[in-house]
Amino acid sequence: MTVKSDPGNFFEDFIVGDELIHATPRTVTEADAALYLGLTGSRYAIYSADTFAQDCGLEGAPIDPLLAFHIVFGKTVPDISLNAVANLGYADGRFLRTVYPGDTLRAVSEVIGVRENSNGKTGVVWVRTTGYNQAGEEVLTYVRWAMVNKRDAASPAPETVAPDLPASVTPETLPRPEFSSAGFDFTLSGSPFGFEDYEIGEKIDHVDAFTVEEAEHQIATRLYQNTARVHFNQVEQAASRFGRRLIYGGVAISLARSLAFNGLSNAAEMIAINAGQHVNPLFAGDTVFAWSEVLDKADLGEGLGALRLRLVAVKNRACVDFPRHDAEGKYLPDVILDFDYWAAIPKRG
Amino acid sequence: MTVKSDPGNFFEDFIVGDELIHATPRTVTEADAALYLGLTGSRYAIYSADTFAQDCGLEGAPIDPLLAFHIVFGKTVPDISLNAVANLGYADGRFLRTVYPGDTLRAVSEVIGVRENSNGKTGVVWVRTTGYNQAGEEVLTYVRWAMVNKRDAASPAPETVAPDLPASVTPETLPRPEFSSAGFDFTLSGSPFGFEDYEIGEKIDHVDAFTVEEAEHQIATRLYQNTARVHFNQVEQAASRFGRRLIYGGVAISLARSLAFNGLSNAAEMIAINAGQHVNPLFAGDTVFAWSEVLDKADLGEGLGALRLRLVAVKNRACVDFPRHDAEGKYLPDVILDFDYWAAIPKRG
Amino acid sequence: MTVKSDPGNFFEDFIVGDELIHATPRTVTEADAALYLGLTGSRYAIYSADTFAQDCGLEGAPIDPLLAFHIVFGKTVPDISLNAVANLGYADGRFLRTVYPGDTLRAVSEVIGVRENSNGKTGVVWVRTTGYNQAGEEVLTYVRWAMVNKRDAASPAPETVAPDLPASVTPETLPRPEFSSAGFDFTLSGSPFGFEDYEIGEKIDHVDAFTVEEAEHQIATRLYQNTARVHFNQVEQAASRFGRRLIYGGVAISLARSLAFNGLSNAAEMIAINAGQHVNPLFAGDTVFAWSEVLDKADLGEGLGALRLRLVAVKNRACVDFPRHDAEGKYLPDVILDFDYWAAIPKRG
Repeated sequence: MTVKSDPGNFFEDFIVGDELIHATPRTVTEADAALYLGLTGSRYAIYSADTFAQDCGLEGAPIDPLLAFHIVFGKTVPDISLNAVANLGYADGRFLRTVYPGDTLRAVSEVIGVRENSNGKTGVVWVRTTGYNQAGEEVLTYVRWAMVNKRDAASPAPETVAPDLPASVTPETLPRPEFSSAGFDFTLSGSPFGFEDYEIGEKIDHVDAFTVEEAEHQIATRLYQNTARVHFNQVEQAASRFGRRLIYGGVAISLARSLAFNGLSNAAEMIAINAGQHVNPLFAGDTVFAWSEVLDKADLGEGLGALRLRLVAVKNRACVDFPRHDAEGKYLPDVILDFDYWAAIPKRG
Repeated sequence: MTVKSDPGNFFEDFIVGDELIHATPRTVTEADAALYLGLTGSRYAIYSADTFAQDCGLEGAPIDPLLAFHIVFGKTVPDISLNAVANLGYADGRFLRTVYPGDTLRAVSEVIGVRENSNGKTGVVWVRTTGYNQAGEEVLTYVRWAMVNKRDAASPAPETVAPDLPASVTPETLPRPEFSSAGFDFTLSGSPFGFEDYEIGEKIDHVDAFTVEEAEHQIATRLYQNTARVHFNQVEQAASRFGRRLIYGGVAISLARSLAFNGLSNAAEMIAINAGQHVNPLFAGDTVFAWSEVLDKADLGEGLGALRLRLVAVKNRACVDFPRHDAEGKYLPDVILDFDYWAAIPKRG
Repeated sequence: MTVKSDPGNFFEDFIVGDELIHATPRTVTEADAALYLGLTGSRYAIYSADTFAQDCGLEGAPIDPLLAFHIVFGKTVPDISLNAVANLGYADGRFLRTVYPGDTLRAVSEVIGVRENSNGKTGVVWVRTTGYNQAGEEVLTYVRWAMVNKRDAASPAPETVAPDLPASVTPETLPRPEFSSAGFDFTLSGSPFGFEDYEIGEKIDHVDAFTVEEAEHQIATRLYQNTARVHFNQVEQAASRFGRRLIYGGVAISLARSLAFNGLSNAAEMIAINAGQHVNPLFAGDTVFAWSEVLDKADLGEGLGALRLRLVAVKNRACVDFPRHDAEGKYLPDVILDFDYWAAIPKRG
């Protein structure tokens, strides 16, 4: 009689080159889109209104790329990070294809790196995850790495393989969004500012804030079918050093991106992820604020540009002074997220 | 470098005659309808079942007019009431056209009145807001007024313009609902009582109650893309005189209307708003009870009538004694809503 | 002037043979399916992905039978159990037809038994409830019984009628699921284990757990349009022996079934309910764990089998030791649910 419940993979189980086909494909619907609005407060017009999207040459309002990302990410959790101690980073993320309601997403990961830690108890695992739609087309792809427990501290260390990762997605390799700027309505979108109006080095305080409740992050994280126990099991978490449930980092990313509407209304579409760190934990009852910095700009041609943005989410304090590091360059304790991505934005023309 | 985040309009920004085109059009879907059921507990058959609606001559279950109202209202918040101290009232609201899943709503407001307060720090702004569908047809329209902060107390007072508002929508000008009473099923609707059965002056205790949680009102208010900070930002609210997040008044209206099913099952469709006051604040943890009074009746012809109803929502106590005013005619402290509207109701025939 | 609000039926109102047509038919949509995922954490592939379901010969992802059950059950509450003291049991439940998004469910109950209790204040009422779709086809049927208050202790006891109920649904009378095992993908489903791999007597600890919040169970229970006051009215519950809102038993069943994915991924479809008891109350803040025992197996032919499963949900403790009874055969105080059902499962072939 085999044990039927799955304890998840441990560090020893990850072999460089292995491919993991993740369970539970997921048809994404307009219901996921509505729940995403209700749970994150997103107001980007292109994901909110069929008419607005159609004026931009799309067949209707697409699924927010971040929602697609969370769904793909969620599928990887039972195989990759069920026994993870920490999610360490993201790199080389690309949103390759518009997802529409009715599309079915599935996820596959390739193990691209392993390195045992000197304590012999944990190791770092790098995977490249790709999300596919029902036609087998690549929808999004990204690298993430996590620190994963060993099953048995006595098992031998594997040969270290550390993947060569780009510091950022370069302008030349940015995916081109499928929407056209020709019919983009700068009144209905909520802001008059286009690609030309943003300067490298510009910082934007997004002003608004969201206090997060347990029910909200749990509903969101279950919607993504992400099974990480730290988000859901208060009995287990009561015994952890935090004493409470941890909020899935993707919830923080989405809340911060929704707050970023106020200042970046027209940079609705995330097209690439350069890097990201969940700097400090977020808990229910905390209030999320956010600010952005324009790190770079890239011309995508035909009326479109891209902004490389640092998105910083902070808990329980306003961002008027753009908090990030202390005098010694260490993250402030109220910073929860430092996220580096590219977003497409139309030119005013 | 222009400041990119929007601080909202202040009293000085409102010029009578100005038109404000609000951002973020919104395609309303059956997902919004399901979330509305889950968040409000509505049980009106016509919004719950395609078959029931089709038997009444509609193409399928429409969107509850109150849900459409909240979505239209939500769009106006960033432009009208982000710097409001209080939402003072509603008048002359009309539901002009059935909204179906798939329709895209957008909102436009005209400034129809301004009056600076004697303190020189705030003023009252009146707007008429109209919601349009994707075909450009008027879906609903209403007047609301709010007390809005001045940016600068020293700026001169504008000339007072106080709009002439009807005390109520008169029977002659009531919108006629699109459903037909011919196929209305008084068993599946949940009550045998039709237009003939209600008497002017009749009071109905709706008996049931809903305790409201932070997550519930926040999800609802975000679904409506209403950005008023008082509902979401506990850090800011902790410093307010309430110390806590305020629940959007529309949540109270919807909960009370859902409770009103028990006693008014067949008066499902709101067709006009005469007046409304959010008398006292509602907070998470409070329990909402409701009662109704029939204020007037109007024959709409062809098997339909309308009831003019006072809907009173009360917190943390039952409504068996129809609480509203104290001996001196002042609202009791547990009354949260006094709402005056017309609902269509079929005749038994 | 008739009292318009409905106090619900009391024990005296139930006459054996009477048929109760329940109010508010309900079109079930993909939004209900998404909300169900978000609220319960279900990961069964067949309810999650159109492609997976289509590979199994269905037209698309069906509605989880448990979601359909809760919706049908919810409709019966205003007529059957509004004045119930306790929900005592289920028997002879059968899921007869696949429900798809767009189907409209309505419910009818027949009173099949009554027995007054010796205290003269309450009685047991048995009903058989059947859910129908828009074509009038039976979708599911089950018997439940509840202890209901008498309106007047002085009213005479009716003649006792105790229905003859099967101890379980026998293998010969099990509904055959509509999906085919031919295209069933044991990788995407999340587990390699098929019908052949489970043994009678096998126990499975489902390992994971969900802490439940007030907002979550309230949203779910309202989505099912279940109006039982004990779930929603904290003012009334504060005066009860529990002092708090009770969580609808169906929420516990669904959470436990979602947890059962880890160990029973391929036993996605519930086809019959043999018995069920809500052993102890579940409250917000409690953490639900679950374990299963294989009670029986039945061959359904053509690549399909069925497992008879005991599903035990437990609060606030892990299930590694399969907690259920104490040494004297009484339920442990942390057991909340003992549920006996059949699920279809494909053979590996």
